[in-house]
Amino acid sequence: MATKTLHDLFVNDLRDIYSAEHQLTRALPKLASAATNSELKQGFQQHLEETRAQVDRLDRVFETLEIASRGQTCAAMEGLLAEVPQLIELGLEPGALDAALIAAAQKVEHYEIAAYGTLCTWAKAMNHDRVLTLLLEILAEEKAADEKLTQLAKTTINTVALQRARPA
Amino acid sequence: MATKTLHDLFVNDLRDIYSAEHQLTRALPKLASAATNSELKQGFQQHLEETRAQVDRLDRVFETLEIASRGQTCAAMEGLLAEVPQLIELGLEPGALDAALIAAAQKVEHYEIAAYGTLCTWAKAMNHDRVLTLLLEILAEEKAADEKLTQLAKTTINTVALQRARPA
Repeated sequence: MATKTLHDLFVNDLRDIYSAEHQLTRALPKLASAATNSELKQGFQQHLEETRAQVDRLDRVFETLEIASRGQTCAAMEGLLAEVPQLIELGLEPGALDAALIAAAQKVEHYEIAAYGTLCTWAKAMNHDRVLTLLLEILAEEKAADEKLTQLAKTTINTVALQRARPA
Repeated sequence: MATKTLHDLFVNDLRDIYSAEHQLTRALPKLASAATNSELKQGFQQHLEETRAQVDRLDRVFETLEIASRGQTCAAMEGLLAEVPQLIELGLEPGALDAALIAAAQKVEHYEIAAYGTLCTWAKAMNHDRVLTLLLEILAEEKAADEKLTQLAKTTINTVALQRARPA
């Protein structure tokens, strides 16, 4: 019987992104450790702190809605993060490795932007005002993180990677 | 030895998105079949045609670079698409199911926007002008597909889903 509503879907997707953020808190130290550019390394460390604060905000979302936060594993984030060790093991020289890590991180950010964008639309439609405020704060941070990665890629790292980019 | 360059990374990620697009051509008929809103169903069918044309463009990219297109499986797209049957099996009523399918499709589009955005940056940095033109064409289509899904979600489907959204 197809009786589940948008509210059920909203809860399902909140638990999904909660799993995704938890997975990310375990992956970001590996990204920071693999990065060779100090600004990038620092960026990943900062985003780890930001991600932990986002998990806290999601805890408040679940409290507000009076529902359990657990019970879901985000398969999409598992797939996104599965590519990180593969990239690290490619044997890339430092500049190219940093470019690879930025690319992987931007895919993660874009996933989260899509997920939170949808959750905000649903929260607004169902008049969950307090929850919407929390989700909008997270969405703004994800967009800023993505923009920061774009700037890092454009201004510094690709230039370094390019120096030896041409095949022999 | 870390000797691989940005060129090698570019080739790696081109093969990754090639695998992703092939996976998507197999998933889109399932999305179209599951959708209940006729406009959404038609949108998925149209995006299938668009995706097939994108695969053809990628074939031209590989020909231009004189490299093989195969040899990679995109784990991220596998993860993104693994969530689709899970959503279909949730037992959602029609409006909520359509909202779920739009959300899943937007996560896929955002993944692709991030992937092609990066590939365009690298193609530009390495002066692959013809390849850049092809990749920019695909990127523009992915952005348009995402925007179309946003409009569909906002104007029609969430309203339908909302009618029965509140828990009893």
